[in-house]
Amino acid sequence: MPSSGAKNERQRSAKWNARREAIIDTSARVFARRGYHATGIAELCEVNGLGKGAFYHYIGSKEEVLAAIHDRVMDEVMLGADRVAQAGGSPSAQLTMLGDELLDVIYRYPDHVWVFLHEFPALTAERAEKFRVRRREYERRVEAVLQAGVDTGEFRELDARLTALGWLGMHNYTYLWLKPDGRLSAHDVAKPFADIFIHGIGSTSHDADQP
Amino acid sequence: MPSSGAKNERQRSAKWNARREAIIDTSARVFARRGYHATGIAELCEVNGLGKGAFYHYIGSKEEVLAAIHDRVMDEVMLGADRVAQAGGSPSAQLTMLGDELLDVIYRYPDHVWVFLHEFPALTAERAEKFRVRRREYERRVEAVLQAGVDTGEFRELDARLTALGWLGMHNYTYLWLKPDGRLSAHDVAKPFADIFIHGIGSTSHDADQP
Repeated sequence: MPSSGAKNERQRSAKWNARREAIIDTSARVFARRGYHATGIAELCEVNGLGKGAFYHYIGSKEEVLAAIHDRVMDEVMLGADRVAQAGGSPSAQLTMLGDELLDVIYRYPDHVWVFLHEFPALTAERAEKFRVRRREYERRVEAVLQAGVDTGEFRELDARLTALGWLGMHNYTYLWLKPDGRLSAHDVAKPFADIFIHGIGSTSHDADQP
Repeated sequence: MPSSGAKNERQRSAKWNARREAIIDTSARVFARRGYHATGIAELCEVNGLGKGAFYHYIGSKEEVLAAIHDRVMDEVMLGADRVAQAGGSPSAQLTMLGDELLDVIYRYPDHVWVFLHEFPALTAERAEKFRVRRREYERRVEAVLQAGVDTGEFRELDARLTALGWLGMHNYTYLWLKPDGRLSAHDVAKPFADIFIHGIGSTSHDADQP
């Protein structure tokens, strides 16, 4: 019962919340290494140094852990999108900032993002629906920036949905190789990706190239 | 022992091979739905209508099924890359063709590609290494086309590795939404993606846009 779980959470202490967050982070690492289905509650208890009773004091089920991992990623991603919307600027500038923010989340949460991208089909019922709605909400932010660029004439005529999916793929897929111990920072990747995309859909470059 | 398995395979009849391929296809569907780790040999036997003995007559282990699914995808992807290399043409034309070929594989093999992109960490030892080498070989094909475009002046100066990773992400990630029953064909997606990418890295468009 996720709703009553969420209600209980609000009533808990800061210490309880911090411990719960730590359990979610540790569990994300285990799910990323071994897979969600292959990991049992017993293993989650062990890596968190908790007995089963203590574990359930913090979180209601294995699927609730999975949902919390998804929420962590979506919270961060939406916070980034909100910062971009508040910053304003041209559609090109906004798309560049969106890419910077998204890659920053992927860079900082490699395990959570791995689980997010691999295990989302394991969410069921209202948790699956909530995830679908939040994910779609973020996609709409990207589409809105693209459409704004078309409306101002900064971008050429394009299918905002399809273009957003291409943009998301280019950025999301970095989870496979963009790592905190790698040769590139999130910004090192975001910058050239923004260059490709913005030149790729820019109205000037497109007009200049037309035969 | 994959090498002796491969040797046996060559010695089998066409009928045996066809049955083995069918088992691999059916198993890909099950792995894509339920996950590799969550699926047991008993379930693979059941969906294939085979007893355990008959199953092992065709394939040596669950991991051998997984490796065969990866090989199916890589075989198709490399065949496409070979066709592109044989066709020749400008780097832009080659990149466009590579995208068409890659999306065609993703479109035709949704289950195999899902398993390929989600379950590759489950391959072990020489199977993992073989997969890594083949995947890297394909990435090098993309990098080579990009570098050729830089060398001819068709593309601007770029990091061929990073650009190839962006291109791969944009195309591979379509596995989440490019479906045989969807509104778009593989080519419907490949064309605008090629437009974005080629304008995005083209030397003409880039020069025209520089302040």
